[in-house]
Parts: sequence; structure tokens; C-alpha cells
Amino acid sequence: MWEDSEFAPTSEVISILETQVDDMTAQAIAYTMEQLLSQGALDVYTQAITMKKSRHGILITVICPCDRQAICEQILFQETSTLGIRVRQQERQILQRELQEVTTEYGNARVKIAWRNGFCTVQPEYEDCAKLARSHNLPLSMIQESVKAAFQLPIKP
Amino acid sequence: MWEDSEFAPTSEVISILETQVDDMTAQAIAYTMEQLLSQGALDVYTQAITMKKSRHGILITVICPCDRQAICEQILFQETSTLGIRVRQQERQILQRELQEVTTEYGNARVKIAWRNGFCTVQPEYEDCAKLARSHNLPLSMIQESVKAAFQLPIKP
Amino acid sequence: MWEDSEFAPTSEVISILETQVDDMTAQAIAYTMEQLLSQGALDVYTQAITMKKSRHGILITVICPCDRQAICEQILFQETSTLGIRVRQQERQILQRELQEVTTEYGNARVKIAWRNGFCTVQPEYEDCAKLARSHNLPLSMIQESVKAAFQLPIKP
Amino acid sequence: MWEDSEFAPTSEVISILETQVDDMTAQAIAYTMEQLLSQGALDVYTQAITMKKSRHGILITVICPCDRQAICEQILFQETSTLGIRVRQQERQILQRELQEVTTEYGNARVKIAWRNGFCTVQPEYEDCAKLARSHNLPLSMIQESVKAAFQLPIKP
Amino acid sequence: MWEDSEFAPTSEVISILETQVDDMTAQAIAYTMEQLLSQGALDVYTQAITMKKSRHGILITVICPCDRQAICEQILFQETSTLGIRVRQQERQILQRELQEVTTEYGNARVKIAWRNGFCTVQPEYEDCAKLARSHNLPLSMIQESVKAAFQLPIKP
Amino acid sequence: MWEDSEFAPTSEVISILETQVDDMTAQAIAYTMEQLLSQGALDVYTQAITMKKSRHGILITVICPCDRQAICEQILFQETSTLGIRVRQQERQILQRELQEVTTEYGNARVKIAWRNGFCTVQPEYEDCAKLARSHNLPLSMIQESVKAAFQLPIKP
Repeated sequence: MWEDSEFAPTSEVISILETQVDDMTAQAIAYTMEQLLSQGALDVYTQAITMKKSRHGILITVICPCDRQAICEQILFQETSTLGIRVRQQERQILQRELQEVTTEYGNARVKIAWRNGFCTVQPEYEDCAKLARSHNLPLSMIQESVKAAFQLPIKP
Repeated sequence: MWEDSEFAPTSEVISILETQVDDMTAQAIAYTMEQLLSQGALDVYTQAITMKKSRHGILITVICPCDRQAICEQILFQETSTLGIRVRQQERQILQRELQEVTTEYGNARVKIAWRNGFCTVQPEYEDCAKLARSHNLPLSMIQESVKAAFQLPIKP
Repeated sequence: MWEDSEFAPTSEVISILETQVDDMTAQAIAYTMEQLLSQGALDVYTQAITMKKSRHGILITVICPCDRQAICEQILFQETSTLGIRVRQQERQILQRELQEVTTEYGNARVKIAWRNGFCTVQPEYEDCAKLARSHNLPLSMIQESVKAAFQLPIKP
Repeated sequence: MWEDSEFAPTSEVISILETQVDDMTAQAIAYTMEQLLSQGALDVYTQAITMKKSRHGILITVICPCDRQAICEQILFQETSTLGIRVRQQERQILQRELQEVTTEYGNARVKIAWRNGFCTVQPEYEDCAKLARSHNLPLSMIQESVKAAFQLPIKP
Repeated sequence: MWEDSEFAPTSEVISILETQVDDMTAQAIAYTMEQLLSQGALDVYTQAITMKKSRHGILITVICPCDRQAICEQILFQETSTLGIRVRQQERQILQRELQEVTTEYGNARVKIAWRNGFCTVQPEYEDCAKLARSHNLPLSMIQESVKAAFQLPIKP
Repeated sequence: MWEDSEFAPTSEVISILETQVDDMTAQAIAYTMEQLLSQGALDVYTQAITMKKSRHGILITVICPCDRQAICEQILFQETSTLGIRVRQQERQILQRELQEVTTEYGNARVKIAWRNGFCTVQPEYEDCAKLARSHNLPLSMIQESVKAAFQLPIKP
């Protein structure tokens, strides 16, 4: 189904950790996310939920390599008020991607290129563009447009 | 525009208090809502928001009669971590409504009747229906249907 | 535990695809959902999440028959900015249901009947009721009530 | 502060209507929004809230011209279960904008041009792009990029 | 990795049930959660989602012991409008915890103590503190602080 | 009603700006918030909303001193895709508060003290505590407890 097998997605196995809390402040949750990412989590996200006795709660989801599961569990037990963590291992399909640097009249910025089925997408790196926007005092969108325009798609081999 | 002026909505002025917090637990927010309602607030609701430095926060909105504004402010300053409360007075259009009791094969329950433009709506009271559903061990929806069916719309004068 | 084995739920295996994005507009997400449903997804839903570096993001969940998993993955890689999709297969319990048409004074409408444990539920089809409400310029709730009232429960065999 | 007074925002007064409900289905809310927009509301949006006794609720906000306030109130009282609507009038700053049509290799599409302070933004119309994407079976993002590329900024007078 | 194996988390297998609905009121969802918890569910939480045809919906997640899965499925089919429930079994890591009662100048309250890696956390029970706050007419936070202060950490064996 | 008039809240007038967008990425919204705060906004928060044609959107609310309203409007028109901003002026009640530094065995940290009605609250500054937690590799909650314990309430004059 994928036209060009050289650029087809590859598969890997990752760990998913989930836990919900109803007695943590937003600051403590932000600190927990920071610790998880610094210890190798691939992604962490939170969702507002409604829990039993109808209280506001937060569901925390951690996606990590299987060999970082133990340390991520330990951080959740150390930094959150949770008493239980659900864990599972799951397959993930991932696209090939690469970073390239482009030059614009405002300065250099990286773009992330992802090979999709028969075409590729180009996303200017946010941090690079925000830095240029701040220093030139220009709208962020103007910088992003100019980075995209400066990018020359490499010839597909 | 309203067909039947006898049942047209009436207007009143109410106070609205709003404040956002990012360092309270769900339990403390639930307690605050309970205190506000017990001191005369007409309605209280909360919303999940994203605050500065991108933290999860909660926006609390209190709707109260103007003569309860001072006590509601005081509860917010006492029970929440907020340092500032936004206040305004605003118009509210309200429908005429009445409670009536109906009899079903499962027991009695009240319905709330609201006169709308040219028709009226009938809402079985949740607490009454839940009580019957629990005691008869029947689905809540079955009780609610039977309460609605038992209601006889009064002749409009 | 199920009183009437003839109407008991049946079991099937489905695929679940999940991915989170933080750089797509709402319009592009709506288009992606439309494409997934047109290619055989059984259900698609999205949730507001908070992602790393505390950005607003959207978690997209796709539920599809196992033989539509490959095409749904391809649509996600084509229409979204994601670089990774989590996939799993899971059991689903489903109720037997059927559509029937009923006749009211405002016109015809279908109802969805689902056999539950010892009783059945009847849900008027939204699109049919909305069409009648628009053409008669009546409240939607009045049409829905009249469709429910017109339905005669079939004798259970 | 605005460089170019010819393109500066203008001011108008609009009406805001707000009401919260906890006993409506999603379908009935969608129908209400459709009715409000068809009767002249400028914008309608809903938010998930947590209400008293901690129930999920929906806050509905309607923004409309002041001369459509009465009809919008009437639709809310007719289509929702609300018993009270909060109303206020408020100032709104609006940008000058225009629609232009551009021609691409895939067909024609409109773009919305808004004059901002010293620059302008160009947004391809979603419906036009989605139509081209469906008929050519191409990614939506590819169509949107090509529409943007085809647009020639008019010379500012 | 866990310093003190005596207090390390233990592992168990639980069932997860998930279903999404778009045509239930908040009241009916609250009743469903109450029924699930009374029949042995360990936790139940709900999330606001956006479903196909872009309607507001609610995702209900039930966590229960494997031997309560059948009765929880039956409650979902009885009390909600769902036609399908996704089920899976999953591992959960849980901390050892215990309840102790402490005495303060305002009365007695329980605290929940959880052994974490090298330290323990102490959470005053909300219901106990709320009761004391109400009866003494004092801020909840003041009661919670005084309960924490009254707790003497037991000597770790 | 306020026991101690010396510490009673004071009143001020602020500006509120609101706008909703449905075609911005999370990154662009984060950048907008950063720009608003750097130009004098007192607080900025965002909420997930559902907009017309049922698309996900974001409502942005800016609270600023009245003399920063013009620059905040300009940033919204420059950095977001909005075509209209709603503005109003509103009263705000604010508590008196002060920052004090305390010394713990792990280092110094500031606490924010707010005078409430007959008592005061003490909130350790998050950034200070997070810095100590990171450098000592200890749970954030342990640092926060130790900062609170080290604080000596000043004698009320």
C-alpha cells in the first residue's frame, strides 16, 4: 500500500504508563512532566478528567522506551500522589524524518522533514522561528513562512 | 415576539464573580463550591484552562444575587488560593417554572415544568428518579420515561 | 448473568489507532476525521490534551475493523503532522440493534432499537428528527418526543 | 500605534448571550447552534464545564448583532433546557478583511485576506480546499500550500 | 532500583472497560458512575471528547477487578446508551498504603500514608477534614494543615 | 464583613480582551501568550472550545491594566489569526500579598503571603522549590513541605 518501501514507516515496541490523580496542583504536575522527559520519556501528556465523587482530576500518560519503564514508574510514584500505575507495552509505527538547516534573510532555522507516502512534509522548528521572531520583532507567522519558502526539497534518491 | 405575554421571561440583575487558580486540588475546589451554594450562590461552575507558563488551571464562575456578592467574595478569598476576583453585574432573562408531583407505579416523583414560547417542557427531577431506580433496581432511563408518561399537562389558562 | 441469551452481546476484535498532534489546525483535523470515516473507520474521536513543553494538543483515536487498519494508518500519516502512531488490537462487546421506521403526524423517522438485558432502548435518529423540526419549524425536542410516542415495541419472540 | 490608519480596526457593539445546561444531549446542542447561526448569530461556541453537584455541563456562548438578540434568546429558550440566559452588550474591535479567488493547477479557491499592522495574512478557505483535496485525492495540506503559493498580494494603495 | 524492597510496589491484573456516548445527559452519566462503584469498580472517570460529525461526547473508563468485569459491562449496557464496549486486561503497579487516625484540637481525622521510595506521603482524608471545617466554620486548608501537623510518622521498621 | 479593615481587599479596574480562533497551532498560541505577558498583560489563559461547524477552537482571554489594552489588542491582531476581539473593562478585588524569603536545610526559597479574613496563607514559590528539588534530587513535595515548615508567621501589627 505504501508506494515507496524505502520510506515506509518502521515498527517498534514502547511502554505506556497511565495514572490519574485528583489532589495535585498544576505546578506539581508540570514538575513531574519535566522529570519524566529528562529521564528518557518519549512523550508525556495530560488530560482533564472527571473522577469518582465527580472531582476534577488529571490523567497522566507517559510513552517511553521499554528500558525506561522502571525509572518512569519510579518518578510517578515519587512526584505524584498516585497509588497505582497502569502499564502496557504496545506497537508504534514511526515515520522516517530528518532535520535540515535553511538560511533566510532573518537568520538560520531548522526544518523537520518527514517522508510520507509519495510526498514529504516540512515543519519549521518552533524554537528557532520564535527566536528569530523575537530578535527581529516580527510576527512569528511571517518568519515561519519565510523559512518554508527558503527550503529546497532534496531530490528523492 | 413572545406569543403569550403571560408566560414571557422576566428580567433580573445578578452578580458574576470569576477567578482562576492553578495551585488548588480538586477536593478543595469541590469544598469551595459547596460553601458558595450553601451561602446563597445561584450557580457555580468550573472550567479547565491553560494558564501562563502553560499550567493547567481552573476558572471558577459564581452567579449570585447582588446581595450575596460580598459573602461569595469572602468565601473565595477564604477557601481558594486566589489573590484577585473579577466582579460584574449583569442582566439575566429567566423563564417561569413550577414543580409538580406525579404518581407512577414505582412511586412519586416531581417534574419541573417550564413555560416556553407556545409550548412547555417537562423535566423529571433527577434525585427523585435516581431514588426510585435504586430502590426498584431498574434502569434510570426506564423510571424517567415512566415519570414523563404519568405527567398530565395542565390546561393553559 | 444475561437473562436472555438470544439478545446477549457478541464479541469481536477491532483495531485502535492513537496519535497526538500539536501543530494542526482544527480544520485539518476535521478533514482527517472525514477521510477516516469514509475509508471504513467505525468511530473516530479527539480529545484536548496538554503536551510536553505544556502545549495544547489533540489526541486522535481511531477505532476500525482490523482489515482497515493499514488504510487508516496511511490516512493519518498523509493528513496529519504526526510522526508516530500507536496501534493495538482489542476485544469489543457489541449489542444487537436494528433500525425501524415509524410514522408521526409530522412525517416518518427511523428509530434505533437496542436489546439490553430484559428491556430495550429506543433512540430516534437525529438526522431524521432534525429534518422534520426544520421543515415544520418546531422544537427538535417536540419532534423527538412524538417519534418515541409513535413507536410500538415489537413483541419479543 | 497602528501604522496605517486606513487599515486600522473598527469598533462595533455586539450582544453576548450565555447559558449553561446539564441535561441536553450533544445532538440537541448541535441543532441549537445550527438554528442560532441560521437566524443571524455571528458566532456560537460551547465549552465543557463542571456544574453544581459536580455534573458535566455545557456553557453555550452566542455572539450576535444587537438587533438579533431577541430572536437568539427565543431560540435558546425553545431548543435548550435552560431556565435562564445572561445577556450583555460589549464592544468588539474588527479587522478589515476581503475574499479573493485564486487559480491553481488543481482548480480555483478563495483566500481571506486580513489587513494587520504593516502586513497582511492570507488564509485559504477551508471548504474550497477540502473540495479540491477530495476530488484530486490529494492531502489537504498540499492543496492549501498550492493555494497560498498562487496568491499574489495586491499592491497596497 | 527501589531502595527498600519491603515497601516496593506490587503488581496485579485489572480489567479496563471503555465506551463513548453522545446522547446521554450529565445526570444519567453520574448515576451510571454511582452504580459502577457500588458494584465493585475500583475507579471510574469520564472525559469530554469530540466525536464523529463533530459532536460533543463523553468517554467513560472503568477500572475494575477482573471478576467484576461482567457486572460492570452489564451496568454500562443497562444505564448508558452505548452499543459497544471495549475491554482489555492490563497490569497495574500499586503502592502499599494504610489509614491512620490522628487527633487535633478540632477533632479526629484519618490520614492515608503511602510508602514511596525512601520516603512516605501523608494525605489527610478529605471527607474527615471537610466535616471538621464545616462544624468549626474554618477554612478547609487550615484544618488540613493542622491534621498534617498532628501526624507523627511511625518509625520505619 | 471583613474583620480587619487594614488587610481588606482593594478594588481596581482592569481590561479584559477575548477572542476565539480555530486555525492556529498550539505553538503559535504559546508564542502569543509569551508576547502578551512580556508587554504587560497581568494574566492570559486559554480554553478549549467547540466552534461553529463544530470545530475545535481556542478561546484566548487576556487580563491587563487599562493602559496596556491597546498594545495587547495589537499583539492579538499581529500574532493570531483572529479578525475580531471583544473588549470590556471590569472591576477586580485584590488581596494584599507580600514575598518573604525563608531558609531551609536545602537552601533559600521565597514564600508568598496573602492576608485573608482573620488568617493568612503561605505559598512557597514554585520556581524556587523546583530549583532546590532538581539540585538535591529530592521530591518536589518534600522541598515544599520543608519551606512551609521553615516559615515563621510575622506578628500581625
